[in-house]
Amino acid sequence: MSNKIFEIIKSDLSDLELALQDAVESPVDTITEIGSHLIQSGGKRLRPAMFFLAAHCDRNFNLNRVMPLAAALELIHMASLVHDDVLDSATTRRGEATANAKWGNQLAILAGDYLFAKAFSLVAEQNYSKRVELQLSKLLTDLSAGELIQNKEIYKASCDTEEYFDRIAMKTANFLAISCQLGGDVAGLSEEDIQALYDYGYSVGMAFQLTDDLLDLTGDEATIGKPAGNDILQGIITLPAIRALEMSPDRDELLSIVTDRNMTPAMLSRALEIVKAADGVEFTKAKVDEYLTRAKTVLPGTLPEDISNSYKMAADFISRREF
Amino acid sequence: MSNKIFEIIKSDLSDLELALQDAVESPVDTITEIGSHLIQSGGKRLRPAMFFLAAHCDRNFNLNRVMPLAAALELIHMASLVHDDVLDSATTRRGEATANAKWGNQLAILAGDYLFAKAFSLVAEQNYSKRVELQLSKLLTDLSAGELIQNKEIYKASCDTEEYFDRIAMKTANFLAISCQLGGDVAGLSEEDIQALYDYGYSVGMAFQLTDDLLDLTGDEATIGKPAGNDILQGIITLPAIRALEMSPDRDELLSIVTDRNMTPAMLSRALEIVKAADGVEFTKAKVDEYLTRAKTVLPGTLPEDISNSYKMAADFISRREF
Repeated sequence: MSNKIFEIIKSDLSDLELALQDAVESPVDTITEIGSHLIQSGGKRLRPAMFFLAAHCDRNFNLNRVMPLAAALELIHMASLVHDDVLDSATTRRGEATANAKWGNQLAILAGDYLFAKAFSLVAEQNYSKRVELQLSKLLTDLSAGELIQNKEIYKASCDTEEYFDRIAMKTANFLAISCQLGGDVAGLSEEDIQALYDYGYSVGMAFQLTDDLLDLTGDEATIGKPAGNDILQGIITLPAIRALEMSPDRDELLSIVTDRNMTPAMLSRALEIVKAADGVEFTKAKVDEYLTRAKTVLPGTLPEDISNSYKMAADFISRREF
Repeated sequence: MSNKIFEIIKSDLSDLELALQDAVESPVDTITEIGSHLIQSGGKRLRPAMFFLAAHCDRNFNLNRVMPLAAALELIHMASLVHDDVLDSATTRRGEATANAKWGNQLAILAGDYLFAKAFSLVAEQNYSKRVELQLSKLLTDLSAGELIQNKEIYKASCDTEEYFDRIAMKTANFLAISCQLGGDVAGLSEEDIQALYDYGYSVGMAFQLTDDLLDLTGDEATIGKPAGNDILQGIITLPAIRALEMSPDRDELLSIVTDRNMTPAMLSRALEIVKAADGVEFTKAKVDEYLTRAKTVLPGTLPEDISNSYKMAADFISRREF
């Protein structure tokens, strides 16, 4: 994330890298190797960042106390990406080789399992509240359920707008919501403020995933690190395409392309053309703006000003991001 | 497991089926479907059984209180089998189609992730001790690390006796040990007795895995549900083969077969012949007996007699099992 947004948590995020590295140290060399590769491949560390910001509302903020939970959030995210890359047979992520490309599907699946377990292990070692543990496990059941729905629907184009929103809520929004909520929880904020932070994270998460899905259609390989239309190619129908399937005069042609497992590059180009010619892109951008406005509106008034500003800047950053 | 051994926990195990079914109920149909299939495909429920037995040492035994933990143990086991079957491209288990055969690798991986998460979720909802949570997550890190070591070494025949014992300890013995230990923990037994139950479970677990590995070589398809030599075919070297690779006059021939990814049925037959001609089978049986004797010896003298007898019968059952 942009440096200015996260001045408050800059040193937390830098210490997080050490905590993550520590979490993957194992007498089993392969675990350390795969784990280190994943950590060094980078990532925005968005979930721990959202968590740390809220945690800083505590006047007695203690980094050592909150770090295991921050690391657990990132480990769960990392593990789910490792499994995702196996599911998609992806060979690169963020310009680096994926774990499945480097070590094969078998070790990648097991490394993902290990990272999930390690996340729960880090949290079990601490004395967080019952709710913290509950929310962390709920986060993972929702995450896998969301991915499962998505994978079940590939090449079916059977998803409507409502189902799409449910799916990205389970897959992404809920994770960011719980990251913010947990930060508020460890900071000892009021129930009302914790709920408001959850709502903020949820709205930002929805906007984030919508933007991600939009960039997948409109971005180019140089900026997003994968060719445009990758979702459609993999049979994943996102909001702009759903909208075009409803509204476009060429919707029958689009449907026949997106449900074809043997899609050629020419067919993909044509699908992108149809989606862009419909109002799917504008419709999605409007939804992003709605969610970001909501995110900024629901932020609790009781937050320290610098934290509140950081959360607002994070929301603005998402609406402007191009990668 | 044999009915007589588990008279004490018969109704617990029957209620466990309901708790498992409940755990896989989800608004996402596919999760309920895959989960139900896995539950109905059966299994010995050995881990919950070991756990329930120890839990019954509590005079105020409360099934509702211990059930979520019992279900969590079985869900973790079930999830690891689902991922195992993906790793091995297995099409059947216990005579039923595997999840990957029925729903494909992608949904099977995600269903496994969901079951892991659900296990932690069940436990997070309860007020078990800190140690219970710690041990449950340790169980899963060890389990995936053990599987990871095994998968890394396939077709390498680089494993020596010590590494083999380490691997099966992480993969199996530790799981049964922690199942017994957790039962002692929730029953409020003394530290000494809890440790003794851990040792019992560990020894029984080692014997169980050794027997499993032996049956894989000596059993026939009708009784063990898969063709003999399946491990060797998949590049997994177990104790009898390790022993033959050290002691057999035909060890060079054996080595060239077990490291060959294009092993033919004739080559596999020859490998089995060499392993059986060496003393690997007897050597392994002697190890099984050692562990079972140890298991019966370490059982705490303070256990109620019926529970102690059940644990002893469970040990005997393992030494006699043929499937």
